[in-house]
Amino acid sequence: MAKVRVAVNGYGTIGKRVADAVAKQPDLELVGVAKTRPNFEAERAVQKGYPLFVAGDGTAAEFEAAGLPVAGTVADLLGRADVVVDATPDKVGAENAKRYAAAGLRAVFQGGEKASVAEVSFSALGNYAAARGKRTVRVVSCNTTGIARAVAVLLPTWGAERWDVTLIRRAADPAESKKGPINGIVPSLHIPSHHGPDVQTIFPGLPIESVAVVVPTTLMHVHVNHVRLTRAPASAAELVDAFRSTPRFRVFAPWERADGTPQVMEYARGRGLGFDDFMENVLWQDGVTVDGKDAYFFQAIHQESVTVPENVDAIRAMFDLAPDARTSIATTDRALGLSRA
Amino acid sequence: MAKVRVAVNGYGTIGKRVADAVAKQPDLELVGVAKTRPNFEAERAVQKGYPLFVAGDGTAAEFEAAGLPVAGTVADLLGRADVVVDATPDKVGAENAKRYAAAGLRAVFQGGEKASVAEVSFSALGNYAAARGKRTVRVVSCNTTGIARAVAVLLPTWGAERWDVTLIRRAADPAESKKGPINGIVPSLHIPSHHGPDVQTIFPGLPIESVAVVVPTTLMHVHVNHVRLTRAPASAAELVDAFRSTPRFRVFAPWERADGTPQVMEYARGRGLGFDDFMENVLWQDGVTVDGKDAYFFQAIHQESVTVPENVDAIRAMFDLAPDARTSIATTDRALGLSRA
Amino acid sequence: MAKVRVAVNGYGTIGKRVADAVAKQPDLELVGVAKTRPNFEAERAVQKGYPLFVAGDGTAAEFEAAGLPVAGTVADLLGRADVVVDATPDKVGAENAKRYAAAGLRAVFQGGEKASVAEVSFSALGNYAAARGKRTVRVVSCNTTGIARAVAVLLPTWGAERWDVTLIRRAADPAESKKGPINGIVPSLHIPSHHGPDVQTIFPGLPIESVAVVVPTTLMHVHVNHVRLTRAPASAAELVDAFRSTPRFRVFAPWERADGTPQVMEYARGRGLGFDDFMENVLWQDGVTVDGKDAYFFQAIHQESVTVPENVDAIRAMFDLAPDARTSIATTDRALGLSRA
Amino acid sequence: MAKVRVAVNGYGTIGKRVADAVAKQPDLELVGVAKTRPNFEAERAVQKGYPLFVAGDGTAAEFEAAGLPVAGTVADLLGRADVVVDATPDKVGAENAKRYAAAGLRAVFQGGEKASVAEVSFSALGNYAAARGKRTVRVVSCNTTGIARAVAVLLPTWGAERWDVTLIRRAADPAESKKGPINGIVPSLHIPSHHGPDVQTIFPGLPIESVAVVVPTTLMHVHVNHVRLTRAPASAAELVDAFRSTPRFRVFAPWERADGTPQVMEYARGRGLGFDDFMENVLWQDGVTVDGKDAYFFQAIHQESVTVPENVDAIRAMFDLAPDARTSIATTDRALGLSRA
Repeated sequence: MAKVRVAVNGYGTIGKRVADAVAKQPDLELVGVAKTRPNFEAERAVQKGYPLFVAGDGTAAEFEAAGLPVAGTVADLLGRADVVVDATPDKVGAENAKRYAAAGLRAVFQGGEKASVAEVSFSALGNYAAARGKRTVRVVSCNTTGIARAVAVLLPTWGAERWDVTLIRRAADPAESKKGPINGIVPSLHIPSHHGPDVQTIFPGLPIESVAVVVPTTLMHVHVNHVRLTRAPASAAELVDAFRSTPRFRVFAPWERADGTPQVMEYARGRGLGFDDFMENVLWQDGVTVDGKDAYFFQAIHQESVTVPENVDAIRAMFDLAPDARTSIATTDRALGLSRA
Repeated sequence: MAKVRVAVNGYGTIGKRVADAVAKQPDLELVGVAKTRPNFEAERAVQKGYPLFVAGDGTAAEFEAAGLPVAGTVADLLGRADVVVDATPDKVGAENAKRYAAAGLRAVFQGGEKASVAEVSFSALGNYAAARGKRTVRVVSCNTTGIARAVAVLLPTWGAERWDVTLIRRAADPAESKKGPINGIVPSLHIPSHHGPDVQTIFPGLPIESVAVVVPTTLMHVHVNHVRLTRAPASAAELVDAFRSTPRFRVFAPWERADGTPQVMEYARGRGLGFDDFMENVLWQDGVTVDGKDAYFFQAIHQESVTVPENVDAIRAMFDLAPDARTSIATTDRALGLSRA
Repeated sequence: MAKVRVAVNGYGTIGKRVADAVAKQPDLELVGVAKTRPNFEAERAVQKGYPLFVAGDGTAAEFEAAGLPVAGTVADLLGRADVVVDATPDKVGAENAKRYAAAGLRAVFQGGEKASVAEVSFSALGNYAAARGKRTVRVVSCNTTGIARAVAVLLPTWGAERWDVTLIRRAADPAESKKGPINGIVPSLHIPSHHGPDVQTIFPGLPIESVAVVVPTTLMHVHVNHVRLTRAPASAAELVDAFRSTPRFRVFAPWERADGTPQVMEYARGRGLGFDDFMENVLWQDGVTVDGKDAYFFQAIHQESVTVPENVDAIRAMFDLAPDARTSIATTDRALGLSRA
Repeated sequence: MAKVRVAVNGYGTIGKRVADAVAKQPDLELVGVAKTRPNFEAERAVQKGYPLFVAGDGTAAEFEAAGLPVAGTVADLLGRADVVVDATPDKVGAENAKRYAAAGLRAVFQGGEKASVAEVSFSALGNYAAARGKRTVRVVSCNTTGIARAVAVLLPTWGAERWDVTLIRRAADPAESKKGPINGIVPSLHIPSHHGPDVQTIFPGLPIESVAVVVPTTLMHVHVNHVRLTRAPASAAELVDAFRSTPRFRVFAPWERADGTPQVMEYARGRGLGFDDFMENVLWQDGVTVDGKDAYFFQAIHQESVTVPENVDAIRAMFDLAPDARTSIATTDRALGLSRA
């Protein structure tokens, strides 16, 4: 069977990761990436052998002056693809949507766009089937992806009378050196934060409330979850087992001494997925607590990479390349080197 | 009436603030402060005219070599006082307790000590009367003080079926330059964190759960509170009014543009209480949200100064210098320059 | 003698400090401050009793909705003054210059403007006399002020064959919560950085080279100075004495244990100049090193306040209110509470 | 020819990297690594297939309880090796030295030890020949390695009348979450800092002065170099070419937009050497400046990985496995994936 031809428009934090992930899949073909201006990331695309196309107001001349050969413009790239993953900055995707539609292309958007950008919002563990055969899909943001995965673990077995999540958000990505704060905490005063309603695009009607604060770190978000379950688990261990046996979860045992996000990321660096990515939800075994029907757990979410496998699964759902979510997830994860911990 | 003579043992973050606060009270007299080693803080004590005594393994010679005259040892200091405020490092207070008892001195301890160090744990708004006439009192920690104040506002009028608080804790004080993390979030995996049970030393039986994470900032803690009230308030404005009309609360209006703790502390710097202290609980009007019986609010707590007025009130309760909590608080706050915002 | 009437246009980081400083001077009168929008700083101006005027595209209605009475517009403010201190954001001052000229007003600008904005660039210790009688003066930036002061100490006595300074710059002010980096170092690749040439506006021909990097702190800049003197000092102590005996220098002795900028700022907080300002150059005695004609010293510069006394002296020079620099400086410093350490 | 059998004692920041590097070399064999306690790093060793030995006061039982099989104790490990790389914490290596000597083992130490720990201090570009046939070698620290490499480039061609370097040091490694400061700059008051004299262990008599400050970042150190050359280069480009044509240097061109260490590390993450290592000295082309005989340049040094290839070359020199430095370096770098940029 011919591979699905994938274009990646935007080759920054998300685009470069999605490009790598697509290139590793057995049933997808990366036909190229688009970038506006030459920089060390464009250089990497060339070194990786990814055909490079000029986007936005960029010019081929500027790339060639830097010694980076280009294969054409975004229009050329789109002409070679069956589907485009839009990884342009927030809100730009909405403008690009018309262009993709005009080109008759299917498109995957990121969570920085509004839900209305696509036919369906997507989480592989949450609502894979809903994306089947769709022409446009929006992969929800990193935080929403992380929450939706956890909901997908707990909801079917224990139910949820109420889900409260406090998001302690990283203020900037590691390479975004112009963003702060350097010292201080900034609450998102509007309650709920946008995350709760965004989870409801995956789980309509879920009784979730979210509150968010921004803190001066670049590594990962941390979620503090308090879930009032419908049925009481026998113990915290029961929940830990449920998380451990689900793909895209990594639960650290106490002896691993991964005390906080600095150690979790140190683990990621030594693991070698590429960049220093951690594509799973990260939980700490000792932080999973049960008190009757009340369950508490922390999870850390690597903002740069956690949606990457979801982009792959979204494509697979759109083109009906796998019989079900589990099969798609297993294919994706095997290709990416994600283990069942 | 003779003023109550107060010694302050330890002249670091808490001690120097309590000394300043005591010196400003109409019914208290600061008889001196004790410090182990000369540094810029000891120099300040001398410049302020506070008699300086040598503590721990320090020597008068070392102070005098620095040009700082000393008035004696801690034993000398204790001999001149009716009560000592112990502001030594965590856990040292417990050892000092015996010494104070042997000297027949009343003593105030800080929240870094266990509750068993004193006859009663104390919050001025929470349980002033409980400290009346006591010989030993423990002022609860900054976070516990902040939560207890908020409980004291809501509990009498609306009741609390359940109080959930997530503490986003500052990792170090501004001058503690050896403590981290520099980049990362560290969860306190044990749930509840020690804060919830500590609040119960003030409000026995309160159905409170607390969860804590540590983040790389030095400015203030931020609490995310979710309270399931017994009776639904008419509106968020009703709660805002209750906080606004209570001493030791400062609620920022939207037009003040105090977006996060960096701006809150900038306000504090311009206000001029001394250091850049903010002794009240800080709330944001737009962050107070009501949904039926569920109330949410953020509060920021200045870890270095929020317990300072509580130390003063504790002394006043122990010596029965005021008819009730409100009177003591009003006296303290007037002397410190705290306004009813 | 009638006091010189001073308007302060802009009431942010610099403006609020200059307003306070002007209000404390025996020979100056603060006639008001101008601000574009209400916030907690505008509130402070009102509480301080400073007449408040509306600037830029702001409206009186917006202030009044916040309960802040305004006394008029910037035009009104300018009409009441003999001189205006422009404390508007960088580059705005240059536009305002024409307006001030049209109003026949003298004006003091800040170092964020180009030198061409005014007749002369100014440092009180460096070139006080040059500003005498001038209608427009530019107080050089915080870093340039700090370097110029140090040059003023060393140059007359020991000469300078060559002055190399590496500036380790704070990335943002404490309340600028949107600026980064959170984690990382950003060099200013152009050598010399703009600081060296800016010092030459005060000391023409000085053989100075400056290099700058930006680091993730909000507290203070630190300068590493290496000066090749013309004449070798007898010892480091000789230089320490020279700094100690000059106004606007504070040299920390080893026993003070002010290891770095966190402790220096802790000292400042306890000192109580207002905000947590440190208006002097901060040196560490143990960091002053002499090796033949090569002298090394660190100095820390509090970016927010170090130019404040310079603004006052600039006005005094322009109106010839003092017989010489020393007299003006002594008057300013006495009023501000700066000591000769 | 039989491979040289290498043991790595200590499997933390340096040890795990050296183990990986050794395992990749054609002429070396990794016989095992030693670690005191189980954690996620020990787990990684097992997953990599590195025989794991118990060090210090650790016990096999503790590892086995964590599911990590151990192959014996450090004594067992040493018995299988021709040479040990000591990667234990600073100052522990000096104690281990006797044990290695008693076992008749050759040993490589790290730069946290004093120079006296070994017969010679080592930099591959600086003094490869000096380590030939030695039984004990000390690889100098990350900062010293970085400076020594730069000296090795400039000294032979242009000479150095004087070398001044200001080190802006990262305060902690990414996973060291207990170290600060979080906000502030801490100067190392003693001048010269230990780095200058340490470079002289490689280049005796070099007229170098070093000054250091510590800043709140975890990513990389940055050096500001000012070299007074003996002979003036024709241009900055001449120096840039010299750096570019030397192994273990990576000079970023302006179009690569690697503005500071956040972007440099982002490049490293995308490059994929393992962890997110950057083993070369990093220079910025636009930051290399020449003014007559005065040359200036910035360089960034990745503290965790820059000495890793040096450890490999040290072993090769000790066992005379290569005819000269260039050959050893080329072998090492090819195995590690380092390019000649």
